[in-house]
Amino acid sequence: MRLAVAGVGNNISALVQGIGFYRQLDDEEELPGIAHPVLGGLRVTDIDVVAAFDVSETKAGRPLSEAIFAAPNNYPVLGAPQMTEDPEVLPGIADPDDEQQLTSVTKILRELDVEVLLYSLPTGLPEVARAYGRAAIAAGVAVVNCTPDPVAGLPDLQAEARAQGVPLVGDDLQSHLGSSIVHGALLALLEERGLTLSGSYQVNMGGNADFANLRKHGANKEASKHRALRQKVSRTDRVTVIPSAGFVSHLGDRKVAHLSIEARGWADMPVKLDVTLQVQDSSNAAGVIIDLIRIAAIARRRGETGFPVAATTLLKSPALVEDPLRQGDHALELLAVLAAENAD
Amino acid sequence: MRLAVAGVGNNISALVQGIGFYRQLDDEEELPGIAHPVLGGLRVTDIDVVAAFDVSETKAGRPLSEAIFAAPNNYPVLGAPQMTEDPEVLPGIADPDDEQQLTSVTKILRELDVEVLLYSLPTGLPEVARAYGRAAIAAGVAVVNCTPDPVAGLPDLQAEARAQGVPLVGDDLQSHLGSSIVHGALLALLEERGLTLSGSYQVNMGGNADFANLRKHGANKEASKHRALRQKVSRTDRVTVIPSAGFVSHLGDRKVAHLSIEARGWADMPVKLDVTLQVQDSSNAAGVIIDLIRIAAIARRRGETGFPVAATTLLKSPALVEDPLRQGDHALELLAVLAAENAD
Amino acid sequence: MRLAVAGVGNNISALVQGIGFYRQLDDEEELPGIAHPVLGGLRVTDIDVVAAFDVSETKAGRPLSEAIFAAPNNYPVLGAPQMTEDPEVLPGIADPDDEQQLTSVTKILRELDVEVLLYSLPTGLPEVARAYGRAAIAAGVAVVNCTPDPVAGLPDLQAEARAQGVPLVGDDLQSHLGSSIVHGALLALLEERGLTLSGSYQVNMGGNADFANLRKHGANKEASKHRALRQKVSRTDRVTVIPSAGFVSHLGDRKVAHLSIEARGWADMPVKLDVTLQVQDSSNAAGVIIDLIRIAAIARRRGETGFPVAATTLLKSPALVEDPLRQGDHALELLAVLAAENAD
Amino acid sequence: MRLAVAGVGNNISALVQGIGFYRQLDDEEELPGIAHPVLGGLRVTDIDVVAAFDVSETKAGRPLSEAIFAAPNNYPVLGAPQMTEDPEVLPGIADPDDEQQLTSVTKILRELDVEVLLYSLPTGLPEVARAYGRAAIAAGVAVVNCTPDPVAGLPDLQAEARAQGVPLVGDDLQSHLGSSIVHGALLALLEERGLTLSGSYQVNMGGNADFANLRKHGANKEASKHRALRQKVSRTDRVTVIPSAGFVSHLGDRKVAHLSIEARGWADMPVKLDVTLQVQDSSNAAGVIIDLIRIAAIARRRGETGFPVAATTLLKSPALVEDPLRQGDHALELLAVLAAENAD
Repeated sequence: MRLAVAGVGNNISALVQGIGFYRQLDDEEELPGIAHPVLGGLRVTDIDVVAAFDVSETKAGRPLSEAIFAAPNNYPVLGAPQMTEDPEVLPGIADPDDEQQLTSVTKILRELDVEVLLYSLPTGLPEVARAYGRAAIAAGVAVVNCTPDPVAGLPDLQAEARAQGVPLVGDDLQSHLGSSIVHGALLALLEERGLTLSGSYQVNMGGNADFANLRKHGANKEASKHRALRQKVSRTDRVTVIPSAGFVSHLGDRKVAHLSIEARGWADMPVKLDVTLQVQDSSNAAGVIIDLIRIAAIARRRGETGFPVAATTLLKSPALVEDPLRQGDHALELLAVLAAENAD
Repeated sequence: MRLAVAGVGNNISALVQGIGFYRQLDDEEELPGIAHPVLGGLRVTDIDVVAAFDVSETKAGRPLSEAIFAAPNNYPVLGAPQMTEDPEVLPGIADPDDEQQLTSVTKILRELDVEVLLYSLPTGLPEVARAYGRAAIAAGVAVVNCTPDPVAGLPDLQAEARAQGVPLVGDDLQSHLGSSIVHGALLALLEERGLTLSGSYQVNMGGNADFANLRKHGANKEASKHRALRQKVSRTDRVTVIPSAGFVSHLGDRKVAHLSIEARGWADMPVKLDVTLQVQDSSNAAGVIIDLIRIAAIARRRGETGFPVAATTLLKSPALVEDPLRQGDHALELLAVLAAENAD
Repeated sequence: MRLAVAGVGNNISALVQGIGFYRQLDDEEELPGIAHPVLGGLRVTDIDVVAAFDVSETKAGRPLSEAIFAAPNNYPVLGAPQMTEDPEVLPGIADPDDEQQLTSVTKILRELDVEVLLYSLPTGLPEVARAYGRAAIAAGVAVVNCTPDPVAGLPDLQAEARAQGVPLVGDDLQSHLGSSIVHGALLALLEERGLTLSGSYQVNMGGNADFANLRKHGANKEASKHRALRQKVSRTDRVTVIPSAGFVSHLGDRKVAHLSIEARGWADMPVKLDVTLQVQDSSNAAGVIIDLIRIAAIARRRGETGFPVAATTLLKSPALVEDPLRQGDHALELLAVLAAENAD
Repeated sequence: MRLAVAGVGNNISALVQGIGFYRQLDDEEELPGIAHPVLGGLRVTDIDVVAAFDVSETKAGRPLSEAIFAAPNNYPVLGAPQMTEDPEVLPGIADPDDEQQLTSVTKILRELDVEVLLYSLPTGLPEVARAYGRAAIAAGVAVVNCTPDPVAGLPDLQAEARAQGVPLVGDDLQSHLGSSIVHGALLALLEERGLTLSGSYQVNMGGNADFANLRKHGANKEASKHRALRQKVSRTDRVTVIPSAGFVSHLGDRKVAHLSIEARGWADMPVKLDVTLQVQDSSNAAGVIIDLIRIAAIARRRGETGFPVAATTLLKSPALVEDPLRQGDHALELLAVLAAENAD
């Protein structure tokens, strides 16, 4: 499967190194941390990154295998074998109003037979996100948007994508096991058991570029996280979400979330749940990206267009969601069907 | 609904005081901590305790309204108004081999038109549990067993109950929001998201009679807790469950559980979840007992016998479970139907 | 002891209600949560609030006993008996450049024989803090400054205070058991035991006016918290302090702090300490204010001027500190001496 | 410095591998996790293990470099270079009543010019501990006892040691940063700040042989842990200590402790501290053993006998403690003096 990436941050470092890590494992071994070893016939190790875009000085002009370690990236160095392809990182779209830059990206995607473009630039560049979406659609390439800046949620892009027969997958990926999904699961459990929520908070911290960035551009993220909770629970008005309490440098690419849930049980007695979640932030993204890009590629190969419902539970703000709880159930069934198909 | 209780411990103190607490609330108010305000037409406040059995010197011979505060009981004193009925606590069955004692209990249950017998003595008295079960069945009274000592799980009692047309509900109640259910939900989430479990533990502490008792009789409890986890997750071999790390007197009737889950994500990177759960132990039981006794009463009124499937998710070791995940789903539907019926 | 307060926030609500709470206890009872029942001969219950200043519309013009419950105050209502004096809250200093307002405050303080002025307005009003300091010094009244806005740390005010023979106590009170003091104690323990710190963070959350305010005016607070840590440990460069991650409304006047300490032990093996601290924020302040105001009153009665060293460990940024670790030891000795004096 | 070890468990694996780890570091580098790089002129890397005793089948008869990895040992394999000496593990004392075995150990210690014997067998063998103590004293060798089984606390051994001019160091080592020392520090802080303790617990878990063993032989350990707390705080009656909640296999040689402290502050408001401590258990021991064996060697070289006061803060049950708080202060000064001496 031929993949292009826009943005060469920690997520791409995790994705590229992780694919290398899994390639060196024995065929018979269980793949640790992999939800779906095969999805629609595509194995984890079937992905090749054939094009990469990033405007930053430390990355543009260098081979991808070097750019993934350039500052401010700080995902661990795994020492896995290099991938077969090692494209030079190109600047791509610096100015979203410059149509020539879009055309150039479209041309590259076409020439390299790219199937899926993964958009993964820092949050807070909605115009750039939109521009990459347009460039990919024009090339007939499926788009996966990892960020809360809207792409799949834009009605005009959805219309364009349908016209071109291209799938649009987004927005904002649900982490593999992130604070939103854990928080949502516990609040849903509380609701199911009939306890009365008094109040709850979720506070996140990390030491990668995302966390420095979120301090300023936290509003889109906070809204997206609330949408993620609403996929799981009906009432979120008593829940405070702090996407980034601040930048904590010694954590590096690790992320820590503290969750607290206070409720009332029988005879108004207090019930309290305190949770700490620690993850490798970019592994937490890559573990879901690997499914999203395969879903996008399969949909494109099958000629499906628009938003593939199978991606619903993998996104914080899935497009076209009218009844998120119902769509979520359907998504899980579709995922199970895809995971049952053989790789060839 | 006419209820008899065997054992006047903290759970009964919570149940009796809690019903009083809810009776004094306004009809229009939301009931805090109540999963199902109405179940099969029965309100929380429709329960009357009309008989109580307990052999302990501090309780037998005293009115129920006093016995619920006798040592070692240490559930908080809520100051709620007293219930209408205030039966004298009778010794009931001290020696399970003494058939006369069983006959006497049967007679009392019949004379008082008891609908449901709630068995709630300390864990570790399987013969006494069995004896109360037999006495109730003989009286045509439904049985609810809160403890891990088997009653509903005994094939011969099940047969007797069917012959007498009596429902048997057990064994071992699932807490309203207990460590087993939270642990199970999080392990299930991990499985669903495709992370690989490295190891997990659950350790419980408290300061009521249960915790002093569990130190010695923990084996049945540990097995029952593992069964509860298997209702939710397929693999529990990497999970250590410690039902009682010890008696911590200053906690009184509060219970604290520490849970830790370690897993592997994308590229074998570590993921860690640490959870602390704090509850009022006996409220946590009473919040579920209130549903179990109503389910038992409704089943009996409708002439249903055997194990009522609606009780499945409310028990750690539900009887007759072949496919617990499927039975659990069915139970939730049945509960929803019961909860939709009007009180009259 | 005759006290005036500038600012009628939660801290003053806690102080006033708390004194009432302790007054109703038996003389022989141990006072819960009291470090020094007697200090320099002054009992906790010897304090009378005889004047109060606050410009806010919800408080000015109302009796103190009502103003302490006016929004946005949200300290719990303890139901303790009212204090003997119940002064009307006066606007005091609204414009720090208006010398007439200063003169008026000076006059009131003199007329009411006030011994100590407690400055406790929201953080971020350095000019107002300075103005109250000047007004009190002019009246010959000792000043206690609870906030990180500098008063005792201003060289010109210190000079004026010495000239007038008035003690100046500040700045920024160390909480009774706050995140800074716990964090400092644990980092110091690590240093003492010879472990090598890898990194540490401290993140604070709350739901009172302070936390809404800190989000904007956090810089002074962060600096003050780092100074507090340096009273305890030599190296604080690997420590991230987040004074307020955000406003969490359901916490009300409660405060939660999450601390994490990562270190290396023998053979470079990891050591990890995770701490959660939960306090009633304004009780945490009042428990130290009660000592600071008595230290200030005693110093004034004894004709001492400048900064009373006994207050060192009760402040985050004590004035005149050259060698904080040494001054801290001396302070503890002085406190012990004061605490040994009898009340009369 | 010539060391003999009795018991070849994880602690010895950590000690031997750790010395190797530090030897390969550059001379100029800071040693991570080392409290005292030099103590009485002895460097961390100056230690040689020249004799080792262990009766277990998996260890006796094999070279020390292999025995340290034999089951049930599960300290991580560090891959550090091997030590210069690699003695064969000898059975030593299997039967403490067999005087011939004692004589044989004495003879070996003498012949190999051993300076210090480190006693580190599993807890619960008080007779064996005593026998090793006697054998070492007879050889004029200093003894360090890591375990709660008494050696230095036995009056008759102390008398023998004084007669022979031999130092006795024990009992029960205080971990480098263990649950007792953290718990003690926080309880002491609470006392110092004047909060009123309501109740506190400490619960420990691990997956090495110690934890399986402690479940049965926990009484000595619990008493020793309470003694450790009393070195720091005056009142420990409201503190519950659970040395081992159980064996948690996936933790291996890691140890987790959960601490909870509940107190009352100003106006009787609640204060709560929850702590989780995670350590590599045997590194936590070896980081202190390295100081204890050097203190013992220095004392012996200087002809000092009895209990060396400098070891006080490194032990849970230091011998001859009349006023532990005072002796602790003195110990810290003595340690500082020793640490200031140059290595040659």
